Amino acid sequence: MLIVMKHNAAPEQIEVVVRTIREMGYDARPIPGGQRTAVGLIGNDGRVDSARIEGLEGVLEVIPVTQPYKQVSREWREDDTIVRLPNGTTVGGSEVAVMAGPCAVEGESQILDIAHQLREMGATVLRGGAFKPRTSPYSFQGLGLEGLELLARAREATGLAVVTEALDADTATAVAEYADIVQIGARNMQNYPLLRRAGQLGKPVLLKRGMSATIDELLLAAEYVLAEGNDDVILCERGVRGFDTHTRNILDLTAIPVVQALSHLPIIADPSHGTGVRSKVTPMARAAVAAGADGIIVEVHQDPPRAASDGAQSLYPAQFAELMAQIRTIARSIGRELSAPLSEVGIR
Amino acid sequence: MLIVMKHNAAPEQIEVVVRTIREMGYDARPIPGGQRTAVGLIGNDGRVDSARIEGLEGVLEVIPVTQPYKQVSREWREDDTIVRLPNGTTVGGSEVAVMAGPCAVEGESQILDIAHQLREMGATVLRGGAFKPRTSPYSFQGLGLEGLELLARAREATGLAVVTEALDADTATAVAEYADIVQIGARNMQNYPLLRRAGQLGKPVLLKRGMSATIDELLLAAEYVLAEGNDDVILCERGVRGFDTHTRNILDLTAIPVVQALSHLPIIADPSHGTGVRSKVTPMARAAVAAGADGIIVEVHQDPPRAASDGAQSLYPAQFAELMAQIRTIARSIGRELSAPLSEVGIR
Amino acid sequence: MLIVMKHNAAPEQIEVVVRTIREMGYDARPIPGGQRTAVGLIGNDGRVDSARIEGLEGVLEVIPVTQPYKQVSREWREDDTIVRLPNGTTVGGSEVAVMAGPCAVEGESQILDIAHQLREMGATVLRGGAFKPRTSPYSFQGLGLEGLELLARAREATGLAVVTEALDADTATAVAEYADIVQIGARNMQNYPLLRRAGQLGKPVLLKRGMSATIDELLLAAEYVLAEGNDDVILCERGVRGFDTHTRNILDLTAIPVVQALSHLPIIADPSHGTGVRSKVTPMARAAVAAGADGIIVEVHQDPPRAASDGAQSLYPAQFAELMAQIRTIARSIGRELSAPLSEVGIR
Amino acid sequence: MLIVMKHNAAPEQIEVVVRTIREMGYDARPIPGGQRTAVGLIGNDGRVDSARIEGLEGVLEVIPVTQPYKQVSREWREDDTIVRLPNGTTVGGSEVAVMAGPCAVEGESQILDIAHQLREMGATVLRGGAFKPRTSPYSFQGLGLEGLELLARAREATGLAVVTEALDADTATAVAEYADIVQIGARNMQNYPLLRRAGQLGKPVLLKRGMSATIDELLLAAEYVLAEGNDDVILCERGVRGFDTHTRNILDLTAIPVVQALSHLPIIADPSHGTGVRSKVTPMARAAVAAGADGIIVEVHQDPPRAASDGAQSLYPAQFAELMAQIRTIARSIGRELSAPLSEVGIR
Repeated sequence: MLIVMKHNAAPEQIEVVVRTIREMGYDARPIPGGQRTAVGLIGNDGRVDSARIEGLEGVLEVIPVTQPYKQVSREWREDDTIVRLPNGTTVGGSEVAVMAGPCAVEGESQILDIAHQLREMGATVLRGGAFKPRTSPYSFQGLGLEGLELLARAREATGLAVVTEALDADTATAVAEYADIVQIGARNMQNYPLLRRAGQLGKPVLLKRGMSATIDELLLAAEYVLAEGNDDVILCERGVRGFDTHTRNILDLTAIPVVQALSHLPIIADPSHGTGVRSKVTPMARAAVAAGADGIIVEVHQDPPRAASDGAQSLYPAQFAELMAQIRTIARSIGRELSAPLSEVGIR
Repeated sequence: MLIVMKHNAAPEQIEVVVRTIREMGYDARPIPGGQRTAVGLIGNDGRVDSARIEGLEGVLEVIPVTQPYKQVSREWREDDTIVRLPNGTTVGGSEVAVMAGPCAVEGESQILDIAHQLREMGATVLRGGAFKPRTSPYSFQGLGLEGLELLARAREATGLAVVTEALDADTATAVAEYADIVQIGARNMQNYPLLRRAGQLGKPVLLKRGMSATIDELLLAAEYVLAEGNDDVILCERGVRGFDTHTRNILDLTAIPVVQALSHLPIIADPSHGTGVRSKVTPMARAAVAAGADGIIVEVHQDPPRAASDGAQSLYPAQFAELMAQIRTIARSIGRELSAPLSEVGIR
Repeated sequence: MLIVMKHNAAPEQIEVVVRTIREMGYDARPIPGGQRTAVGLIGNDGRVDSARIEGLEGVLEVIPVTQPYKQVSREWREDDTIVRLPNGTTVGGSEVAVMAGPCAVEGESQILDIAHQLREMGATVLRGGAFKPRTSPYSFQGLGLEGLELLARAREATGLAVVTEALDADTATAVAEYADIVQIGARNMQNYPLLRRAGQLGKPVLLKRGMSATIDELLLAAEYVLAEGNDDVILCERGVRGFDTHTRNILDLTAIPVVQALSHLPIIADPSHGTGVRSKVTPMARAAVAAGADGIIVEVHQDPPRAASDGAQSLYPAQFAELMAQIRTIARSIGRELSAPLSEVGIR
Repeated sequence: MLIVMKHNAAPEQIEVVVRTIREMGYDARPIPGGQRTAVGLIGNDGRVDSARIEGLEGVLEVIPVTQPYKQVSREWREDDTIVRLPNGTTVGGSEVAVMAGPCAVEGESQILDIAHQLREMGATVLRGGAFKPRTSPYSFQGLGLEGLELLARAREATGLAVVTEALDADTATAVAEYADIVQIGARNMQNYPLLRRAGQLGKPVLLKRGMSATIDELLLAAEYVLAEGNDDVILCERGVRGFDTHTRNILDLTAIPVVQALSHLPIIADPSHGTGVRSKVTPMARAAVAAGADGIIVEVHQDPPRAASDGAQSLYPAQFAELMAQIRTIARSIGRELSAPLSEVGIR
């Protein structure tokens, strides 16, 4: 941490800064410059609360130098984290994982039918909401436990791994019982009790970036999960709040290489929520793979105009099949491969 | 809801839109124009999921006309909601409420001492965190239950009403037992299980706007609380995510008159989190009152450089006293009054 | 244009809205609904100033239905605009154009050397700033006219077309004399005298999206050029202002399919300014092509650490060569081809 | 400038950084820390191009320490700049200046009539556009030179100083001939040829903050004017691009105390463009004065529904009179005074 003093800071003010740093248990090193003095705080263990120093007289600015996160950092662990799913596929490493499915589980035939189609087209993970966080209290809120059971049935029938969202500690426990990956949605990225609980469940966690979360905040949210002993976190870029009304969000694909440089955790992209418009999903899914994403998660519905939610951003199955063909080539252009289709490797 | 068709939409495409609307249980009215046809959806009860229509062929855009919220709307209830606190003060109406206190409860002497000072200076509500949502898992997380007990003791000693934050359903129940107002923080604005629980506790709720929440989203979050039967919701503008690094957030004061036009609920401002910098808190607190806020919530600490958290944005007591004098005049300039000081009205 | 009335708007207020619309020369059609009345304005020619209606009593909201732009619209011209450059290559259509070069022209050997390298690696357009818009008045401002002459020499030597930026009407005239494409930078996207001048010069215009411009504003800026009789406008996404400090901007690639749906004009992407960080340029350039961009414009310098400006975001030539190989495959995966290298088609 | 190295940076990489800094003509000082080494660049004169260092191997981050601007800085000149206008009023210092008038000059009787009214109500500066920058090429673009002549006539008749916008070097020269303050609009904040020209005209300059300009960028734009020898720059906060559609922009009032701490230049606020909605103009004008603005600039029209532009955000004269009464009290609450009305001090 670097404390930059005002150019006319008095020597006593610099002295107070140095003393305060030492009182806090760190070492302080003044660095006189041409125009002003700065004071380096040495030995920062990531727990320094800069607020105490920011308010001191003569201080112009406090600049963090040490990264605020630890276990998620590539400086902590150099090799990519590879999350292994029960069906033998992985997220992270050289494979590009494709997760797909309807916004919400609506009923048995719906979820079984689409799961079979997706498996044939090469997806390896089935998505589908049982507990839906909805902006309005009057919107469809999901089938709940019944939805979880239907997802488990679809997994049994197809071999697809299952990812679905938890909204709080209670639903997280239920989700962990039925699903292979516990999803924490963008609105809950900083729901700390939920993050801690997710860290204790023994299942991989899919953590979506909040609507206006910085990348450091995303990594710190993941740190909550790792701090509980769970290293299997998959990050997900799903769009940040923008000012243009033609799309629902701005899908910030640059976050992918940025995260990959800072952290060993895999990161995937969600072009469905990231754009909110069906015709933009395919180009942005391709772009995500080209940018180096470790996977994508895409909404597909057998009859989008009749979907219980998010129909406007759900692909038709035929569109998804075309997308699969395109991203297979794109992955190869950068030396990667889509996860092998379950049908080809002989899984049920 | 207005469905705008592409200028070259075929009559059959318009027909499908009309038919779909009717299947959904609403009435459809085509409106031919010079360049294109639009179709009005009549009878929208706020539950229409536009997604189903957005994806239809020939549709250019779906434009919401009906507001998505209900009970929070000024069209639902014209008169201002006035939230009455046990100590006889109110939030909403003509009074301007001043809530103040440290970021976190740190110990008995700290909270009692500052509470006494604040009461003398004219605050009527005491703030102080017992459960702290912290970006890093390694930061101080608050005293928890012990903090709640200390807040209750400070209330007993001073007559100040108490507001403090809940992080999930469990802590919400505890907070409701000890405090007068249950606070839901910006990070939890769309934590729907927490919102529902807060709606069932029988205590006023202070709901902070999320970091990048639109005003409609804020009102819809409040709708979750009202939908459970709790009308006593106080909204709070606390800054939205901005791009400039000189302040932590952009305090969006225009939200105050905007909310007041759309809703009957009171809205206050938090210039401490809204700016993150002590020297900006006073000007922005004044600005909030001048903009018509129904109150402010401000961090004050007897020794900011030694505060356990947020010291850099906490006012010194003397600064708070000066602020009180200024906003008393400003409130009068627009025909309002600060809540009468408890000492003057003879409360304990 | 749809004028939505408040739910309790008086019949006389609706009447005033209708009368005002008619006074303005348009037709008005009231549409009574369940909760409120809306009034359609029929015959909007894109020149309606909604401000006059917005302020009327009883009006809740004015919703634009007609697009505000005209000649740039795909409804005006359905087929893609294909911009033809003097060296036989095109921008728009099925070709993907690659423009590359240093941030600034620094001297004869620098620009000639890099131009030859880029031509060999398959670029077809040379970029390089002669007039540099710099945030600080004390930064290097470019070689000016001398820079233009050096660019012309590089074109002569390599066959590459030349694109370079104009800052005002005077420099636009000079640029048009020497270059093949006149660039208008992000900071000048709404510099209307410059846009008009660019429309009169008879040369293709490369118009970059402003830092916080909506897509409608970008299209309206292009409309200024087309309104002067110049149809050859190439749009460019170059990143919008974001809140994360790990990158300089957020490259908003979704703008590419959005613009392609709304307009017939070609759109390319600038991953160099869009990210500001060398290691993110390659992934985002690939992503842009995967998203369907009609081209990319990339900064390449023979010795980035010694570049006069923007060295940190300039690729090394070897990195650019690798990028070319990757995007060639990606373009094919979606049925497109990079512009044929000049060396292969025999252009000197 | 501080160059932070990766924790595993090799000693040779640190050596290259040190050597590069010295080659650039500055002094380098390595600062070894617990986790990583940083290198201080000493003697930064504000012209260091960090790009050259950012791209070096082993560099994690380059952190600017010296402010990039100079003459605009409060470190350069401690005392407030006070801009003196020909009619004896000032901007900056303890006076709060009120500038008011229609969006555009529409004709002689319009501008003379409103000018007389505004003078009576206490405004001291008349605003009114002669050259209008309009998003659409098809909107009303102002009366041009004729507008300037009418403004001069209004000044003669009332004693009000005149501020009006210039769009490029040519119009700037014309504006300087007729008006007392040359306005540079938000869209042109980084139009460098215009800024330079404005610096040479010998008239005060009103510089509006760009729609997504950081405060440092605003100050650097002002630096262009001061660098030409013109110290009389008035900054103006007029709203930054936001994501909520209830208002046109987010008026970022915190920018006022931020700028006042960093710079000696006066800063005013424009609540008309900052909100875009008449009913929000009055509260935000009050808030601006309460936040410490050195003035406000407000649109007032005698018949807003018939205004040639921006009618929806123009106040009625009676609303403006009420606003004046309110801000007079608010200014006093913080120890300031509105500029004395011309009528009272006897200026014709």
